[in-house]
Amino acid sequence: MTQQLIGAIEAGGTKFVAALADETGSILARTRIATRTPQECFPELTEFFRAAAADHGPIAAFGVASFGPIDIDPLSPTYGTFTTTPKPGWSGARFHDVLGSFGAPVVVDTDVSGAALGEWLAGAGQGCTTLAYTTVGTGIGTGVLRAGKSLMGFSHYEAGHIPVPRDAAVDSFGGHCPFHRDCLEGLASGPAIIARWGKSLSELDDPAAIDLIADYIAVLAANLILLHMPDRLIFGGGVMKSPALLAAVRRKTETRIAGYIKAPQLDAGLERYIAAPALGDDAGITGAIALGRSALA
Amino acid sequence: MTQQLIGAIEAGGTKFVAALADETGSILARTRIATRTPQECFPELTEFFRAAAADHGPIAAFGVASFGPIDIDPLSPTYGTFTTTPKPGWSGARFHDVLGSFGAPVVVDTDVSGAALGEWLAGAGQGCTTLAYTTVGTGIGTGVLRAGKSLMGFSHYEAGHIPVPRDAAVDSFGGHCPFHRDCLEGLASGPAIIARWGKSLSELDDPAAIDLIADYIAVLAANLILLHMPDRLIFGGGVMKSPALLAAVRRKTETRIAGYIKAPQLDAGLERYIAAPALGDDAGITGAIALGRSALA
Repeated sequence: MTQQLIGAIEAGGTKFVAALADETGSILARTRIATRTPQECFPELTEFFRAAAADHGPIAAFGVASFGPIDIDPLSPTYGTFTTTPKPGWSGARFHDVLGSFGAPVVVDTDVSGAALGEWLAGAGQGCTTLAYTTVGTGIGTGVLRAGKSLMGFSHYEAGHIPVPRDAAVDSFGGHCPFHRDCLEGLASGPAIIARWGKSLSELDDPAAIDLIADYIAVLAANLILLHMPDRLIFGGGVMKSPALLAAVRRKTETRIAGYIKAPQLDAGLERYIAAPALGDDAGITGAIALGRSALA
Repeated sequence: MTQQLIGAIEAGGTKFVAALADETGSILARTRIATRTPQECFPELTEFFRAAAADHGPIAAFGVASFGPIDIDPLSPTYGTFTTTPKPGWSGARFHDVLGSFGAPVVVDTDVSGAALGEWLAGAGQGCTTLAYTTVGTGIGTGVLRAGKSLMGFSHYEAGHIPVPRDAAVDSFGGHCPFHRDCLEGLASGPAIIARWGKSLSELDDPAAIDLIADYIAVLAANLILLHMPDRLIFGGGVMKSPALLAAVRRKTETRIAGYIKAPQLDAGLERYIAAPALGDDAGITGAIALGRSALA
């Protein structure tokens, strides 16, 4: 039996992780590249995969879990291409261009759907039929899986930009989103928190601040429940690393749902229902490997 | 070739429509039953289908598009059963019990997914890969189709209960939802409008009232876009019959999205993107027939 090898890329706003894995998901080689322009990053990726293939054998498929906005529709002529992003140089960059020379199929999905897939296979989402993975960090985004396949419409979802109720008497911050000012991302993303308080939630260590941000994140949790009915919600990303935030999100979400949804999935206190990632920083690359594996015959 | 006949039920809060159709969807017999308790409605349904089958031939499959909450998971042991509803007598009632004696498969989905399917096949949703159909009436609900199949999580969606931003300085109405007070359904459903103004939007004929309700409905439109990315949004139901409301929803939704989503689907003014139903009152029964057809070999 010939071992088929998988090239995997987790493309984040800060760093790229690239790995060569075997069919079981065991990583044979791995590197980390700082995110700059595609002109700088793409040659380093090519070089890594060339060297890894020389050491271990030819690559049979690639899986990419990437930041967006990016075309993730396999039937689209621009599949794998970044669309209109303010990130310098990335609009129009295409993963198939950099990886095409290897002659292997390339499967591209979002970073959040990749993380969802990783957690579904090996982490906090095991056993779920419908799973929502949300990152709250530099941006806010959600990937939803159904039976291990990520859902999309004409594009991937953009959960970060949902409107959120605010009490102007309690919160007079103007918001940080260049499009919507006080959408969820404009209020609860890492940069919005810095713009508001000059420091991160962890540095602040203020229960009132945690409650305020948790209330906004709970609006997304409620919307995800009402519009997707997932078996579990996972919340990862830098902002969620603040102690007490996840517990506050559980509390605020329970208040928002107010007993309306009765299902065994929604346990008392939502302790199991709203979960932290179990794979930590490995969810993304685990998901990218799984995306690549899905292209193997 | 033997013609296979389909029994179809559109189960609404006010009325049931039952029909016998052939495989092409042509209706051979049709009746209308006022919604009361299942003890009253179910025997009338049985009698209608018995008589229709005696006239036209045996029924090969049933399709049901029903109000909820109802178990729509074909793999569930309680598939087709109403769950916890305040509607007297309906909790625990099951379509398979009333239709089981015909010995034909029974496919059950929500009224909104049924209407979505009808519009997708023959109405305003033709050509869409992802389609969201929302009713704004006694309740508010949304069904989302992907390639003609309705999406669900552990249950059907409950779009009516999403949280909505409100400006307390503009709107001091307490809200009408027994669970959440001022969720979308508590502000913009037919009964909420009556509770607030003592008359319907059409009777009021007040541009400010239409703008206020449109703003709330646009929050759902924005959430559906950001969390489902449908190719089109259809808004039906009694409240949407108010002239000028759909146009106001388009305007408010465009303001909410604020140019963030760039896609050919979202045309200027959202004239095509946010549509009225084309089948009118026939969408539900058309969808129910299609649900039944899906069970034919």
